[in-house]
Amino acid sequence: MSQERLQRVREELRRQGVEAFLVPRADEYQNEYVPAADERLAWITGFTGSAGMAVIGLDKAALFVDGRYTLQGQQQLGDLPIALEDLNSEVIARWVGDQLRSGQSLGFDPRLHTDPGLALLKEYLGERDIALKPLEQNPIDTIWLDRPASPCGQACPHPYVFTGEHSSEKRQRIATLLAEKRVDALWLANPESCAWLFNIRGDDIPHLPVALSSGVLFRDGSAILYLAEPAVGEGLLEHLNREVMVVTEKGQLFEGLRRRHVNRIWVDPTISNCWTLQQLRALDLQLLLERDPVTQAKACKNSVELAGSRAAHERDGAALCEFLAELPTAVAEGLDELAAVKLLYSKRQQREGFRGNSFETISGYGPNGAIVHYRVSEESSLPMAPEGIFLCDSGAQYPDGTTDVTRTVALGEIPALAREHFTRVLKGHIAIATLRFPQGTCGEQIDAIARRSLWDAGLDYAHGTGHGVGSFLSVHEGPQRIGKAVTNTPLQPGMILSNEPGFYLTGQYGIRIENLVFVKESVDYQGFLQFEELTLAPIDRSLIDTTLLTAQELQWLNCYHQRVRKIITPLVNEKTASWLQKATEAL
Amino acid sequence: MSQERLQRVREELRRQGVEAFLVPRADEYQNEYVPAADERLAWITGFTGSAGMAVIGLDKAALFVDGRYTLQGQQQLGDLPIALEDLNSEVIARWVGDQLRSGQSLGFDPRLHTDPGLALLKEYLGERDIALKPLEQNPIDTIWLDRPASPCGQACPHPYVFTGEHSSEKRQRIATLLAEKRVDALWLANPESCAWLFNIRGDDIPHLPVALSSGVLFRDGSAILYLAEPAVGEGLLEHLNREVMVVTEKGQLFEGLRRRHVNRIWVDPTISNCWTLQQLRALDLQLLLERDPVTQAKACKNSVELAGSRAAHERDGAALCEFLAELPTAVAEGLDELAAVKLLYSKRQQREGFRGNSFETISGYGPNGAIVHYRVSEESSLPMAPEGIFLCDSGAQYPDGTTDVTRTVALGEIPALAREHFTRVLKGHIAIATLRFPQGTCGEQIDAIARRSLWDAGLDYAHGTGHGVGSFLSVHEGPQRIGKAVTNTPLQPGMILSNEPGFYLTGQYGIRIENLVFVKESVDYQGFLQFEELTLAPIDRSLIDTTLLTAQELQWLNCYHQRVRKIITPLVNEKTASWLQKATEAL
Repeated sequence: MSQERLQRVREELRRQGVEAFLVPRADEYQNEYVPAADERLAWITGFTGSAGMAVIGLDKAALFVDGRYTLQGQQQLGDLPIALEDLNSEVIARWVGDQLRSGQSLGFDPRLHTDPGLALLKEYLGERDIALKPLEQNPIDTIWLDRPASPCGQACPHPYVFTGEHSSEKRQRIATLLAEKRVDALWLANPESCAWLFNIRGDDIPHLPVALSSGVLFRDGSAILYLAEPAVGEGLLEHLNREVMVVTEKGQLFEGLRRRHVNRIWVDPTISNCWTLQQLRALDLQLLLERDPVTQAKACKNSVELAGSRAAHERDGAALCEFLAELPTAVAEGLDELAAVKLLYSKRQQREGFRGNSFETISGYGPNGAIVHYRVSEESSLPMAPEGIFLCDSGAQYPDGTTDVTRTVALGEIPALAREHFTRVLKGHIAIATLRFPQGTCGEQIDAIARRSLWDAGLDYAHGTGHGVGSFLSVHEGPQRIGKAVTNTPLQPGMILSNEPGFYLTGQYGIRIENLVFVKESVDYQGFLQFEELTLAPIDRSLIDTTLLTAQELQWLNCYHQRVRKIITPLVNEKTASWLQKATEAL
Repeated sequence: MSQERLQRVREELRRQGVEAFLVPRADEYQNEYVPAADERLAWITGFTGSAGMAVIGLDKAALFVDGRYTLQGQQQLGDLPIALEDLNSEVIARWVGDQLRSGQSLGFDPRLHTDPGLALLKEYLGERDIALKPLEQNPIDTIWLDRPASPCGQACPHPYVFTGEHSSEKRQRIATLLAEKRVDALWLANPESCAWLFNIRGDDIPHLPVALSSGVLFRDGSAILYLAEPAVGEGLLEHLNREVMVVTEKGQLFEGLRRRHVNRIWVDPTISNCWTLQQLRALDLQLLLERDPVTQAKACKNSVELAGSRAAHERDGAALCEFLAELPTAVAEGLDELAAVKLLYSKRQQREGFRGNSFETISGYGPNGAIVHYRVSEESSLPMAPEGIFLCDSGAQYPDGTTDVTRTVALGEIPALAREHFTRVLKGHIAIATLRFPQGTCGEQIDAIARRSLWDAGLDYAHGTGHGVGSFLSVHEGPQRIGKAVTNTPLQPGMILSNEPGFYLTGQYGIRIENLVFVKESVDYQGFLQFEELTLAPIDRSLIDTTLLTAQELQWLNCYHQRVRKIITPLVNEKTASWLQKATEAL
């Protein structure tokens, strides 16, 4: 984060003959979370947000962040001579277009970008005769002398008791799709796809239990698995059997394609980096550019995975209830947001199979709760008092399931409108929870159902209603989603999603009620689907204005609380059990 | 519809050196309604539905229709040796792929297709080395000796009192967008776009008051307008003034592009036929392939157009009320579906400015009402009795506005579940009518709001909830829409849409409640939008189960009826006024 680093990058750009360079927050796997070795954006700009892009020109530089990170971007840039701009392909294109002249080049690391991600920039610059030039050597890596080592965790088998389907079965299932599409092979760009397809897990990335990996699946169900580091965990080779060849050099994947006489390969351009596509094209392969079929298959959990998720949610719910039960006393004894995170972590840690948080806990008291993507730090952590509203969004990884839950609780007296706002959010939550919808319905079609009670009062929330969740995999998993963005993905039985409408009053409080649910066939109507709750924790009754609820909504709430009480009571200590009794009383 | 026609087409295919030929139901303007001269699909297959495609091969032939036309397709094909298949690009591609061998060609008339419309077919056949070959001469036109003449109506000025914006103002407004996109000109492919931009109307096409036309708009606001026939109506040249050159040969448009040194032109590939794109490419023009900006501008009605629409709906509502008031007597005296259509037409005919129906009236009694796209004929027309349910969907063209309204009425005793079904449809209708939604919301996001009351009971309807409507233009107008299909088009103030949820019980009855509404800014909440009703006609109270309505829903209904009564009563005869009094009584 010094001018000196900028200076040295610029020297490197001159040496490589480009006038500017793109620095995304990305690794070569296009993961949401990136290893420390790939935090180039933070290294050069100081900005540590989860999404962003910088352009370093010979004279000027700019950092592009989205609305939620504007303030943080400003603070972290400090007095570095880097402009702060809106993260938007058109804005970036215009900025580059203004800096560079016809005949000049913008360099990029082809391992860190996808073709679709660069398409707009390429078109815009192309019209101005500015080249987008892939660089063999990332200019930052050349000068980042103390760059952390790449992660090197072990890839281990993820046993059948949790997956419910052998890798060979999964591979045969996907191979059928390859035959249908008349391709010889499928490029596995994504470590999550590899984790699911080969039933392996690792710990190379924070919050995401995968090994950095990619691979190739052939039409006969055999495969090559590349592991980024020669960290083949215990029992892995036996687990994969001889149909899967494990390699530790990426080149061996391309070599394998040649040896197996692959002519036509399926590759998902949205998750495969430009470098990979270059390599495949250099092999003269025909590319079928479509969505990775593993993504779709992985999204639909089988009965073993759903049973695992249920079990994980019971333990996770018990931990959360212990935390919530203890909260008033802890607040009275002096708790701040950061300590709350630690307290909750300690409760989960005591539960069987806990493998860490599935994302960084959001612990927002009062005004901090209104910052949607708030991450508490030493500097920001507010002390909590027995009044106002506390929003806590957290989740955990267990080998049998991934959890993600938000509860918003009153710590005492609350602002005047909070009860109405909470109840409107709850109505939206219940609207999704009780919805029946025909097969073929996509998440984008039902998003407004969750918002309507807020829209009625001229209110809304600026995030999606639900995201897909993996099975001991990413807490944010596609392709299913409930939001405004078009997924073109019908919700299907077995898909796990969050249901998390919210409302945020800047400077005052945030409200969000989040349960994980899974899609199942409707018990009443053929051809219809509905959701079933996985998350088990009381919704704060003291924040509900029952006069705003319909009879059906009240009934849903009371039934849900009855179920929570029945399942969680046997799993918690006496103090929590007695708290739970009150917290789940019928309204 | 004889084997002989098929035989002669096949001879023509051999002569032109192709092994098969595509026959779409389309004209060169990609209109929903086509002139008689373009009913080639009906001429060769006998099929008269509004959507379909045939492939005539040297040995075999197939007709492709969608689900609503399967029965009609079978009947109309009769014993012609033409297979009936599903209208779906993939099905067509596979059918052609099965018939033709590598090296053979599928011919098509490039004037009747768009590039995107052929893309999937082209890719599929390309992989099999089967060529898609544009034919200069349509093989059907060569042998269709008694082909009707092309329409030759007059293009007339559409006065400022109805448009509220001069053509010169509109052209300047769109020209600004051309400058922003750095194009020299815009290709006006669509007669509706020309009608709006030049403030002209015609009567070349059934139900759609446009002249067959296309044109070019230049960046300085000047333009060339091509009229398919030398039928320049009275006052047209004065109306257009010297900024618009009127030509009667299509070649003069391309000539104009050359003369004006156009380098880069905006052309909408979804509404421009392949032939046009070929011509533009042959001129070595750079093409900006984006959605026609006129479509978007046309969709947002100004205050004059909205006032016109209100006035048109008052007269149209009065006519409809007279029809509905007379219906019981007419039924008692012996009315069938066809006579009902005529009766309603006669009522509209008496209203000022009536220029014909805006589409073919759907008049469906009992089981015929359950056929969503039912068109009554001499053969199908059912006699109506004082019992059961009658669905009537109709609309008219007036110079001040286009209408479209569906009312479903009980003629006496009704089937047991009909009242519940009607009330669920009504709840969906009211849900849209009362919805407030944030700016930026697209129709596809709110479609489910209209369906939820049906989904709750495991029911649904297999059509969209609402379509855009023009201003004395097409009753089906894009880009706005409320449906499952993704429009990516935020609903904007001034857009007119239908709100028409329904429910159909095959073999028994159909229910649909349709009003036109327009989008306006919310009166209560900044940044929010809502709808306002245009249609004025009672909703049959005898079909409503009030116990299923919430207090708010009932209030909406009573308010709406009060308004209908207040506005329509002064416009109708005494008998209708007294019927209206009862039909709008508070529930």
